[in-house]
Amino acid sequence: MSGNDYRESLRRYRPKVYVNGHEVPSVADAPQLAPGVNAVALTYDYALREEFAPLMRAETGNRMLAVPRSSQDLLNKLEAVRLVCQQTGCAQRYLAGDAFAAMLSATHQIDADLQTDYGDRFSAYLQQAWSDDLAIGVAMTDAKGDRTERPAAQANPDAYLHIASRRPDGIVLRGAKAIVTGAPYMHELLVMPCRNMTRMDADYAVCCAVPIDAPGMTLVARPAGRPGEPAATFSGRYGQSTAVVIFDDVFVPWERVFLAGEWQYSSAFTYEYATHHRHTCIAARAGFGDLLIGAGALMTEANGIDLDRAENVRESMVELIRIVEGFYACGVAASVYCRDDAAGVAVPDAIFANVGKLLLATQIYDMHRLAHHVSGGLIVTLPGPEEDHNPATGAKLSELLKGRSDIPYEKRVEVARLIEDLTASSQGGWYSVISLHGGGSPEAMKMEIWRNYPLGNKVDLVERLLERGVLADTTRRILKNRQPGRCCIEGCVVPLPEPAALTLHRKKD
Amino acid sequence: MSGNDYRESLRRYRPKVYVNGHEVPSVADAPQLAPGVNAVALTYDYALREEFAPLMRAETGNRMLAVPRSSQDLLNKLEAVRLVCQQTGCAQRYLAGDAFAAMLSATHQIDADLQTDYGDRFSAYLQQAWSDDLAIGVAMTDAKGDRTERPAAQANPDAYLHIASRRPDGIVLRGAKAIVTGAPYMHELLVMPCRNMTRMDADYAVCCAVPIDAPGMTLVARPAGRPGEPAATFSGRYGQSTAVVIFDDVFVPWERVFLAGEWQYSSAFTYEYATHHRHTCIAARAGFGDLLIGAGALMTEANGIDLDRAENVRESMVELIRIVEGFYACGVAASVYCRDDAAGVAVPDAIFANVGKLLLATQIYDMHRLAHHVSGGLIVTLPGPEEDHNPATGAKLSELLKGRSDIPYEKRVEVARLIEDLTASSQGGWYSVISLHGGGSPEAMKMEIWRNYPLGNKVDLVERLLERGVLADTTRRILKNRQPGRCCIEGCVVPLPEPAALTLHRKKD
Amino acid sequence: MSGNDYRESLRRYRPKVYVNGHEVPSVADAPQLAPGVNAVALTYDYALREEFAPLMRAETGNRMLAVPRSSQDLLNKLEAVRLVCQQTGCAQRYLAGDAFAAMLSATHQIDADLQTDYGDRFSAYLQQAWSDDLAIGVAMTDAKGDRTERPAAQANPDAYLHIASRRPDGIVLRGAKAIVTGAPYMHELLVMPCRNMTRMDADYAVCCAVPIDAPGMTLVARPAGRPGEPAATFSGRYGQSTAVVIFDDVFVPWERVFLAGEWQYSSAFTYEYATHHRHTCIAARAGFGDLLIGAGALMTEANGIDLDRAENVRESMVELIRIVEGFYACGVAASVYCRDDAAGVAVPDAIFANVGKLLLATQIYDMHRLAHHVSGGLIVTLPGPEEDHNPATGAKLSELLKGRSDIPYEKRVEVARLIEDLTASSQGGWYSVISLHGGGSPEAMKMEIWRNYPLGNKVDLVERLLERGVLADTTRRILKNRQPGRCCIEGCVVPLPEPAALTLHRKKD
Amino acid sequence: MSGNDYRESLRRYRPKVYVNGHEVPSVADAPQLAPGVNAVALTYDYALREEFAPLMRAETGNRMLAVPRSSQDLLNKLEAVRLVCQQTGCAQRYLAGDAFAAMLSATHQIDADLQTDYGDRFSAYLQQAWSDDLAIGVAMTDAKGDRTERPAAQANPDAYLHIASRRPDGIVLRGAKAIVTGAPYMHELLVMPCRNMTRMDADYAVCCAVPIDAPGMTLVARPAGRPGEPAATFSGRYGQSTAVVIFDDVFVPWERVFLAGEWQYSSAFTYEYATHHRHTCIAARAGFGDLLIGAGALMTEANGIDLDRAENVRESMVELIRIVEGFYACGVAASVYCRDDAAGVAVPDAIFANVGKLLLATQIYDMHRLAHHVSGGLIVTLPGPEEDHNPATGAKLSELLKGRSDIPYEKRVEVARLIEDLTASSQGGWYSVISLHGGGSPEAMKMEIWRNYPLGNKVDLVERLLERGVLADTTRRILKNRQPGRCCIEGCVVPLPEPAALTLHRKKD
Repeated sequence: MSGNDYRESLRRYRPKVYVNGHEVPSVADAPQLAPGVNAVALTYDYALREEFAPLMRAETGNRMLAVPRSSQDLLNKLEAVRLVCQQTGCAQRYLAGDAFAAMLSATHQIDADLQTDYGDRFSAYLQQAWSDDLAIGVAMTDAKGDRTERPAAQANPDAYLHIASRRPDGIVLRGAKAIVTGAPYMHELLVMPCRNMTRMDADYAVCCAVPIDAPGMTLVARPAGRPGEPAATFSGRYGQSTAVVIFDDVFVPWERVFLAGEWQYSSAFTYEYATHHRHTCIAARAGFGDLLIGAGALMTEANGIDLDRAENVRESMVELIRIVEGFYACGVAASVYCRDDAAGVAVPDAIFANVGKLLLATQIYDMHRLAHHVSGGLIVTLPGPEEDHNPATGAKLSELLKGRSDIPYEKRVEVARLIEDLTASSQGGWYSVISLHGGGSPEAMKMEIWRNYPLGNKVDLVERLLERGVLADTTRRILKNRQPGRCCIEGCVVPLPEPAALTLHRKKD
Repeated sequence: MSGNDYRESLRRYRPKVYVNGHEVPSVADAPQLAPGVNAVALTYDYALREEFAPLMRAETGNRMLAVPRSSQDLLNKLEAVRLVCQQTGCAQRYLAGDAFAAMLSATHQIDADLQTDYGDRFSAYLQQAWSDDLAIGVAMTDAKGDRTERPAAQANPDAYLHIASRRPDGIVLRGAKAIVTGAPYMHELLVMPCRNMTRMDADYAVCCAVPIDAPGMTLVARPAGRPGEPAATFSGRYGQSTAVVIFDDVFVPWERVFLAGEWQYSSAFTYEYATHHRHTCIAARAGFGDLLIGAGALMTEANGIDLDRAENVRESMVELIRIVEGFYACGVAASVYCRDDAAGVAVPDAIFANVGKLLLATQIYDMHRLAHHVSGGLIVTLPGPEEDHNPATGAKLSELLKGRSDIPYEKRVEVARLIEDLTASSQGGWYSVISLHGGGSPEAMKMEIWRNYPLGNKVDLVERLLERGVLADTTRRILKNRQPGRCCIEGCVVPLPEPAALTLHRKKD
Repeated sequence: MSGNDYRESLRRYRPKVYVNGHEVPSVADAPQLAPGVNAVALTYDYALREEFAPLMRAETGNRMLAVPRSSQDLLNKLEAVRLVCQQTGCAQRYLAGDAFAAMLSATHQIDADLQTDYGDRFSAYLQQAWSDDLAIGVAMTDAKGDRTERPAAQANPDAYLHIASRRPDGIVLRGAKAIVTGAPYMHELLVMPCRNMTRMDADYAVCCAVPIDAPGMTLVARPAGRPGEPAATFSGRYGQSTAVVIFDDVFVPWERVFLAGEWQYSSAFTYEYATHHRHTCIAARAGFGDLLIGAGALMTEANGIDLDRAENVRESMVELIRIVEGFYACGVAASVYCRDDAAGVAVPDAIFANVGKLLLATQIYDMHRLAHHVSGGLIVTLPGPEEDHNPATGAKLSELLKGRSDIPYEKRVEVARLIEDLTASSQGGWYSVISLHGGGSPEAMKMEIWRNYPLGNKVDLVERLLERGVLADTTRRILKNRQPGRCCIEGCVVPLPEPAALTLHRKKD
Repeated sequence: MSGNDYRESLRRYRPKVYVNGHEVPSVADAPQLAPGVNAVALTYDYALREEFAPLMRAETGNRMLAVPRSSQDLLNKLEAVRLVCQQTGCAQRYLAGDAFAAMLSATHQIDADLQTDYGDRFSAYLQQAWSDDLAIGVAMTDAKGDRTERPAAQANPDAYLHIASRRPDGIVLRGAKAIVTGAPYMHELLVMPCRNMTRMDADYAVCCAVPIDAPGMTLVARPAGRPGEPAATFSGRYGQSTAVVIFDDVFVPWERVFLAGEWQYSSAFTYEYATHHRHTCIAARAGFGDLLIGAGALMTEANGIDLDRAENVRESMVELIRIVEGFYACGVAASVYCRDDAAGVAVPDAIFANVGKLLLATQIYDMHRLAHHVSGGLIVTLPGPEEDHNPATGAKLSELLKGRSDIPYEKRVEVARLIEDLTASSQGGWYSVISLHGGGSPEAMKMEIWRNYPLGNKVDLVERLLERGVLADTTRRILKNRQPGRCCIEGCVVPLPEPAALTLHRKKD
């Protein structure tokens, strides 16, 4: 499927979409959504280009939808996502691959424990999705209501999406998902739970797939990027919409339901997805970083700065590189130290994946700062594009505001506007907030690092150095050892010094 | 003069102003400039309110135009600027006060050295400006062209503003000033040099005052804030325009000329202004910080977070406070340790003023990060204001997207939009870039800290501790000692341990 | 009293002191304690020097013991403490002044509420301490035992110091104070509670003064500095001892008891002390910073680096200055915005004082890093002092390891050893840990910032901007407004925009 | 060879070693050097343990000496070095492996260009070193004299080590190497140039191997660790000596000479070594980080802190983990993206390796801060080990200073001393300075990142986004593209979007 085929395919759906208070008659033709459609379309076009084939095509089709089976797959996914995001800022479509991996693992786990058949249902769905090469969104974040209460205890029962009723042929959903990236121009949405649940919350433990135009579903969306704004050099072409999706008694047939009440498994969907998704986010933001690095270098050039001499500006360029490659490295390491789960999914190492996501989440602000530093104040003070062709001022400005004499003003202002667009516009704001909170807020990553770190090993190491025996009379929490995973690198093993007797977190009897 | 009087007064001027490619017929009535006019108007209104009198009124009139004569004046200026900026984001008008102080000092210095009469001319102008209670902008930053060349060596002679010809009754200016804050809605502009000059650059050493509608002057401006955008809760009301000001043979009579060719004194204007202005910037950004602190607290409340319990969110609130009060403290210290110059101007301590400006310049990005952290991702994903009254979705959203049950959705979304406006919109981008580069980029502050620090004292201290005699055979650069200034605090003196024999920076032979 | 008089006075006491497992027969003559004695002695000598009089002498005698009564006093205290600490690293004796201020305020408060006579007792004691010009330590930190239990609930009742019995003529103390700075070479100790207490903990609410050789008191101390180590250029001369002080039924007569069971007032002693002490810490560490700045500059010179050219090294010097003056500024601001309490004590502003202490606590590590950066790796690899006079190697090393040709090796290695001593030795470790945890750990400062910040004002500001009425139906916690304090600066007032109706922290029903 | 065999082997050498001014009669028996000998011995013992075989043994023998030939080798080296350093702090011996890789590459390059036979000589030497399983130090850092002058222009010609004369059978060396890690207890030293050279400096372009007891060579060393200090829980057992090595006409036969005057190739030795060594440093410091993590966790436990509840302490633990695994990830990524050079050496990716080293260099100070934060102030205030058995105080202290009731004081103080030893003692100082400056100071890494980054690709990316043609009339500097390297991961390729036409750094004509 090419990008244009994808655009055409959108016409076969009739989703109920509002943008800025107005209903959108045709998603494929809506200017407000065009930058989002363009970004997704590029993932189709790139998969058709031979030179990108090793990255963009997996065995099962487009890399954006692939389930990783090895370190190679994970590394290739990283490079593929970085590639599409360095063209589009954020290509959005890869979230489905992350969700597929999580759903494969989680349904496998339920089936193994409870002899259900969610795994078969999901596999059938997955084959179809691959074969149709769909664009699929992930509807996870609930409205949540009062943060201090669990789903079933909310004053408003619809604060979390839930099963309103069960029918012989399927389930009926009610509630809302509050932040669904790219929703309007997807073919389908994957509904997933956003947290762990208790027995009381059983109706809220639901995972399924719904077509974007399922009856009863309404999408209230923001425009994608900055469509129609003349200064939006980049985000006038590529952008991302986010939507609130209201479910007003939406029916889902059983063959598309992958969790329906087994509340104990809700967190498996959430956490597995989080690990895959944070790993992928690393690559997405590295692609964004590539844009900043390139634009920053061009801007310094247009300003007449020689980076080999201007130490303080070069320092900021190096710092920008250090940040981007520093968090990308965590993605690579998470791929190498992946583990192979029972469903055959290669799961990125949780420590490295969460460290990488945490680094990008907080350092996106430093990236903006550094881009601004190398660019100078002109990016928010140069006249806008409407002025370029003003006969009263255009020629004069072009002459006066030139920097280096061999680079035309037009080129300088063009890069300046790109940097403003990426870092000092509403689009720049979106990138920073989404980097911070998307895929979970910093606390979520910190908790995952804490939960997964083999702290007991480190404690054991120190106790042996202190020539202590391990205290025998205490309860121990066995902490996960770092596993070498199914690392494809033969001969690379990471044994522990000794069979670890772990001692931390002794609770007082 | 009240705010409305100020608005009315603007009608008496006929400046040639373009915004977004279109000429503005009446500045006072232009919607694109209204947020800027509002921000300046507030500085008039506040001076009329009795409860603000100690802050907003100096002996010579409005505090925004006052020349500081003591530590008290500097402290009161800080509080006054913080006050007006916590209402408007940035009230713009105080730049004139900073420029007046610098011009008083610099003209005094030239007159003392060269027996010129710039000081008298300037005093006469100053009395008039005070008595007319004008709004005055500062036109300092030149277009600069190729950064590696001095003004007179530029391919384009107009890259820096300069004296094109001298007439018996005055001078004629040609060139441009590239970044003039608030220019369109000012009564006058103060033209100042932006750097040190050499003999060759004499024509570029020029300082004078011009009315905003001087023949030959064209202003190409950006809109102030985000006028007309429905989501611009705050910056639809208060904002800042910046303009490129083109000087196409603008005549200035001698009585308004305060530097005309005495190139040796160009840097005096620039550096004196920089010290005053950086000091003032500290207060301006503290006012902006107050807005973020208050809005962040309200947002957490609407989200249902109890800050006394949610340690990680409270941690971010405290960090935000730490940043804002941390750099504000530098402004206070610079006031206390001010020095009294020959013209009777109280000059803020350069170390503390530059440290404070440096801290705010880089930490504005952390302030955005922290505001985003405490607010959650909703600030860039909630539906826009056009959706509020959509009959198909409004009521539903209002019910679904409520956080804490006793706080209406309308209030939650209102604060969310305010935070988006302040930190994740084009206005947020403006605040960050202007904080970083306004009043000089970080390198400029670092150089000032370096130039002014009494490093010799510290070296002397260590040499005495090492029981070394001071090396006698070396050339010494006497570094400035920190002076107790004309600190109003009686009995507070900061003597040096011993008459300091300074030793650093010994050059070889 | 001169430094030597102080040394002599120590001979009149017979404290039971152990250092490194051995009893010390005479504190004044113990080499292990000499650096500590030297540091305290300097505070006596400096008070006798006329040029330091404005700083070192208050009306009541030595500044180290003075109770601040105005902004001037606070500013002078800061400069005095910075002065003595830039000679000694940490002069230790100023803690008594901080405690005196707190005890004056707290006893005044109890008396006012309970009609006790603690205030009179304390005033009498204070007059005597001033007149005798004593060196007095502060014994505050208890052993604490299990951190999750309150004092009275500890398995070991002696984990916190407490009143073991009450007698007609006084009280008997039992327990220990775990970290008492400079204890062995003090004349007396002030026993203070280290936390808030409950009714159950009444016996633990105790404040009093005890002579250092009170029967039943044992001091287990660390050596002060690095006495006797040949490479200890600085800390062989000046240092600090810390001691565990064991109280084994120590009798204290009533005239020296200032709290005995009034548990509600325990926290008043603790928190008031904390505010004064954190304010003072700022100056102490600024003095240490001065040493690093001077030594760093000398080291770069000896290495042959020209700081006007080597941008990256200069950048680190400026960063070091920025840190030191940045937190010092908070001390200045806390002095200016002090408040005058009912006992006539000028209390530094809690926000600025805690922000300053927090900044120094965490940035001391950056200060070490920067000092190392500018100095190069030689500081931990150059041969030690024993090698200087080795006939087989000394001359050769002196020739080979010279940096700049006009600076002898001996001078280079001397500065290198100073920097190692200050930052890469056990003394350097002490400075960093004490900066982090002394006067309370970072969490304590964060809580104080949170408790004291006028958050309600900021919320009110935003609510008015949003044109909201204040919600009438909610419970409000009135948050402290920033007070202008008894700032000596006439005309400097910090009014609130409007009588503030505060709205934050509305609890549900 | 076992650790004891290694100790025995040291007796076969008679190096001239001074420590603290005294000659060492037998290195193997010198208490001052024992911690260093222990650390090296462990690398022998571990290679004999079967469970460590995959890490510690390469095809050519001990991993510490192996030349990496693939990504696997690099990953295994990382894990092996982390393993030995988490036991010893720093095992020192791996530097030889880094130097071997660099020498193999550089000699191959000279031979290819100049038809010399350095490669054969070096291969013969290498086979012997492997077969003898030697401990070999790297003597690279010259004394350097005046930093602003090149080697041949120094006032003192011996400021850089150089060829004093050439004989038919070899060369004679004169000068000194200033910082040689572990020198006294090595069998041999590899002499390497520390910078690029010019034709004038030809005599300074020298690389060779010398036995540790070569006539004319004198080692002036610091003790290894903190031998004999009772509180040195860890560094009394494991430590590192650094030595100044004086070359006073040391003869080296031709078969051990690998560069002698071919100045153009000097930098090849230096830079190749730097890349390998920085990569290895990452693993070494990660091992040190493991010690801190484990010790920090034990200390919190002994203090009675429950990390699942105490959010602020847990936050610091997570931050410590984030730092350690964050820079370790860069080592992993550098291994995966390695390149295969003409000599068959797998060279770690220079960007990732330098980013990782830069991160550890600056963040070691944060690691200390965090370890201190979680441990509390007791680590520098608890009584020393001599007090433990003081009959007058020991039992009392043991009872009073206990934290959690089920953990004996003895265990608490033991961990506290370990943390003091690692972070707040002279050993802690050594670790921080060596991390900052070892393997090159931060500027060196920044320059390497800058030199190697494929900036042109990023610029090209942006130019295509801006739909610009590539400017045809400009000189281009072709910047290195990131290569997929000889990554062992099949199917993992990193193609560039399009044949890159690079445009940055256009110089004016």
